[in-house]
Amino acid sequence: MIKRKTYIEVKKRSAALIDKAGLSFTAEEKNKIDVADFGLSDIYKEGVQILTFFDTDRIAGKLLILLSDQTEPEHWHPAIGNNPGKQEIIRALWGELRFYIPGVNNMRFGFIPEGQESNFTVRHEIIMKPGDQLVLEPGTKHWFQAGPEGALLYSFSTTVCDIKDGFTDPKIVRTTVIEED
Amino acid sequence: MIKRKTYIEVKKRSAALIDKAGLSFTAEEKNKIDVADFGLSDIYKEGVQILTFFDTDRIAGKLLILLSDQTEPEHWHPAIGNNPGKQEIIRALWGELRFYIPGVNNMRFGFIPEGQESNFTVRHEIIMKPGDQLVLEPGTKHWFQAGPEGALLYSFSTTVCDIKDGFTDPKIVRTTVIEED
Repeated sequence: MIKRKTYIEVKKRSAALIDKAGLSFTAEEKNKIDVADFGLSDIYKEGVQILTFFDTDRIAGKLLILLSDQTEPEHWHPAIGNNPGKQEIIRALWGELRFYIPGVNNMRFGFIPEGQESNFTVRHEIIMKPGDQLVLEPGTKHWFQAGPEGALLYSFSTTVCDIKDGFTDPKIVRTTVIEED
Repeated sequence: MIKRKTYIEVKKRSAALIDKAGLSFTAEEKNKIDVADFGLSDIYKEGVQILTFFDTDRIAGKLLILLSDQTEPEHWHPAIGNNPGKQEIIRALWGELRFYIPGVNNMRFGFIPEGQESNFTVRHEIIMKPGDQLVLEPGTKHWFQAGPEGALLYSFSTTVCDIKDGFTDPKIVRTTVIEED
């Protein structure tokens, strides 16, 4: 649940970050930014803003926008029937991006959102600078977090089916509900 | 065939355009820019520079770089066996991009490279500005050309198999041969 006023504010701040980074997105695209609070109702703490610039039946391209210290919850893209699951390429574009995948716990720069210790299980930290990139195979648990200035990153992938994503936090609901003031 | 000296010059000018546009590509990536002369041995007239930033068994992302008035020859991505063929998303990033697909001949800003009338058959012109985008389904003939300042564009696609692409110009050979001075 997110209040209409907060939803508008988050969208506005996300569009401003795109402009600050000097990225070529049209006004129409910026207007379609999606705000995902994952049903946790604490958008500035856990959430992500998504600008989907293409999404065909075969491939998708999204710009993900994180505000200052905002965290995208831990999740993974499972296989679905005959589909091996979403393969995703992450490419850092602007700001400091803290990315977490399975492996040795070397967490140093990021933090687990307060009270959420059990919902962030992978803690191998990769600090991504603009132009850094990684490939996530289906099923790989991952979460990420912006530095103090926020962060912009691309997500390129095979067919998207967000509704089938797995999340570590059992409280998560993928659909954002907007509460009118 | 392209002389080593020209090859190096074209790579250098392409990397300079990336810097001018302010895009986040690493020095290592810029060093891997591929120069394609399509065997026509006239790179400044017909050719393209390609920076492949990811290319898995399922999806690919490339930055295409055209120098001033440079033209990528007409081609298409055919079906191969059970694969329906490459679906490609073109996204204009910087400079003026003249794009040609099947449809009414409304060509006004671009030009057919001299002596190549028969090798450029589709002439429905779309002038793409930064942030403009189009989806090319497999089998769709297309070619494109930069304006006087050059142009940068993304190509995102399903699995790439350049060697299977169809070209209208029968003189085309996909592999670039570098001639040592």
